[in-house]
Amino acid sequence: MKITASKQAVLNGISIVSGAVPVNTTMPIQKFILISASGGKITFTANDSDLGIETVVEGSIETAGIAAIEKGMFMEAVRKMPDGEMNIEVGEDFTMHIRNEEQKIDLSIKGNSGEDFTSLPDIEKEEPIEISMLTFRDMVRQIIFSISTGNESNKVMSGVDCIIYGDYMRLTTLDGHRVSIRNVDFDKEYKKQEVIIPGKTLSEISKILQPDAEKKVLIYITESHISFEFENTVAVSRLIYGSYINVDKMIKSEFQTSIKVDKKKLMECIDRSTLYSKEGNKKPVIIDVFDDELEIQVAATYGGQDEHIDIEKQGNDIRIGFNPKFILDALKVIDDDEVSIYFINSISPLYIKDAEETYIYMILPINLN
Amino acid sequence: MKITASKQAVLNGISIVSGAVPVNTTMPIQKFILISASGGKITFTANDSDLGIETVVEGSIETAGIAAIEKGMFMEAVRKMPDGEMNIEVGEDFTMHIRNEEQKIDLSIKGNSGEDFTSLPDIEKEEPIEISMLTFRDMVRQIIFSISTGNESNKVMSGVDCIIYGDYMRLTTLDGHRVSIRNVDFDKEYKKQEVIIPGKTLSEISKILQPDAEKKVLIYITESHISFEFENTVAVSRLIYGSYINVDKMIKSEFQTSIKVDKKKLMECIDRSTLYSKEGNKKPVIIDVFDDELEIQVAATYGGQDEHIDIEKQGNDIRIGFNPKFILDALKVIDDDEVSIYFINSISPLYIKDAEETYIYMILPINLN
Repeated sequence: MKITASKQAVLNGISIVSGAVPVNTTMPIQKFILISASGGKITFTANDSDLGIETVVEGSIETAGIAAIEKGMFMEAVRKMPDGEMNIEVGEDFTMHIRNEEQKIDLSIKGNSGEDFTSLPDIEKEEPIEISMLTFRDMVRQIIFSISTGNESNKVMSGVDCIIYGDYMRLTTLDGHRVSIRNVDFDKEYKKQEVIIPGKTLSEISKILQPDAEKKVLIYITESHISFEFENTVAVSRLIYGSYINVDKMIKSEFQTSIKVDKKKLMECIDRSTLYSKEGNKKPVIIDVFDDELEIQVAATYGGQDEHIDIEKQGNDIRIGFNPKFILDALKVIDDDEVSIYFINSISPLYIKDAEETYIYMILPINLN
Repeated sequence: MKITASKQAVLNGISIVSGAVPVNTTMPIQKFILISASGGKITFTANDSDLGIETVVEGSIETAGIAAIEKGMFMEAVRKMPDGEMNIEVGEDFTMHIRNEEQKIDLSIKGNSGEDFTSLPDIEKEEPIEISMLTFRDMVRQIIFSISTGNESNKVMSGVDCIIYGDYMRLTTLDGHRVSIRNVDFDKEYKKQEVIIPGKTLSEISKILQPDAEKKVLIYITESHISFEFENTVAVSRLIYGSYINVDKMIKSEFQTSIKVDKKKLMECIDRSTLYSKEGNKKPVIIDVFDDELEIQVAATYGGQDEHIDIEKQGNDIRIGFNPKFILDALKVIDDDEVSIYFINSISPLYIKDAEETYIYMILPINLN
């Protein structure tokens, strides 16, 4: 194999497929990137057991061929090359040479034939769901933080619930303390269905999506897989088998109190509350809702907080306690300048949501008694 | 105590004295910053067993007083305050309140009286050595990397040798593999003397020196201490007791070969050599000096390097091997665009130095046989 490509194109290709190279694995081949040059197309592929990513790299092919190269070493070597065109040649012993002829540079890395490499599963393609890269990227960013991690006993909760309701889609994540929901309307009707996507898949894909409202992601769903196609890239992931918790009942509540508050002010205030979250015995932030202001207080053994923030309020006064981290996580991903918060009573969750319910964050309180 | 100061001034004060707050210590008080407001001056002081730093913070005093506050918590709390003026008040129970009255923010942190705090040693001041902040900062940066660390059996080598030769000063560091030297001329004559300064002291001080050629550092030396005064800051450090290795003989050699080479090209090339320094059995970079070019080669089990760089040469051809890291460390801190390298033979050190010998880097080779 002999190809020519720019350093930037190769680096970009490596970093796109890197999301499917596991950090730890017992299968050495999963640490490799498969490079294929054939039919006029250079493709890089990586594939761990759950997620595979394949991307087309711009460049020219002098001799077709295929080889696998360890991702870490490949990336480091390319990073250290000068900018501009590079020649990449893999000989019969599968040693890759990365050359800059003009500057008389020749770096070599031993690779292998790639015959142990598992290619991406071929999935049956029905009509894809179309969504802009920007919107899908934002949706994932706005719900991915409340996924359950490290809980192998309930794999369903390590996934993102994705429900296509026909003309809109809902992404939901939850851990034992909170539920995060993002809804998006479609301009056409799709087949109703529900799947659970591994959190890691969406997290990796959102990293390689550009914040571009004009470009589309095409999403194909089958019984066992989900595939994302955008620009020169295809990502195929296994789905998680199981039933997700039904959150419909949780989010239909009678609120006794609602407030409107400046998001930045509240976020900076709750960020200060986290100063006092270091003790083993974590102190809740106590929120008192009065007519025109919130009072925010924390009392820890090594200090405390007392702040007042102006609000607009409807309904009753209320005193309620929370883990400040959970409120902060939600406020950090909300793009609105003003947020509305809804309360039921001091032992029920609060809800941060916009009027159209494009986002809903439900957070369980800490009992103050 | 009650004072008013800007967030920026307080943060700056904390970060200046932070160099004297140890990361690990068995003496809790060393984790604290002493805040003193008296005689119209607000000072912050930190002091571990070797280095003490005191700095004056701009602000106004409403009530004089003194208190000690844990550095980590103090810094984090101030960072999370809004920009602008802050009121800092410490009551009789030594709880510090940091307030922004306008925004109704009150953060508190429990402190203590500071009565266990060790103040900076009073040192006898003779005529100081004067040097610009920029020059001294550069000198330290250019030699500090080859200090011996973690070698408690030879404390002298964990220090920087500082010799005042009268009208010039030399800083020297060395580990078992290399010697780094920086000389600077004075425009006046000082008393001849030699001291060994703890590496950590110089490393911390260089962090807080600004790259300003107009502002001066005043250096006072006594039998057991060295003190640095600049702007609103005083740093006092213990000296290391002992005799430093005499490097004079090492740096006077008969060279058989000398070359001139583009520094950036060589540095980027040797940086690529470090790609192959990961095996347990580290491979040397092999340098072949020919008439008009260097050939740089590494042969590792998982790949290799072969590059050519144009040079100007005087003297014999030579083949010699090195640990690429040591050459890279020196090249990284040299500010010249072109460097001169001198060789004796294939089992003697190389020397990277400028014509005036403001810097000399001596690096031991790896025997290729």
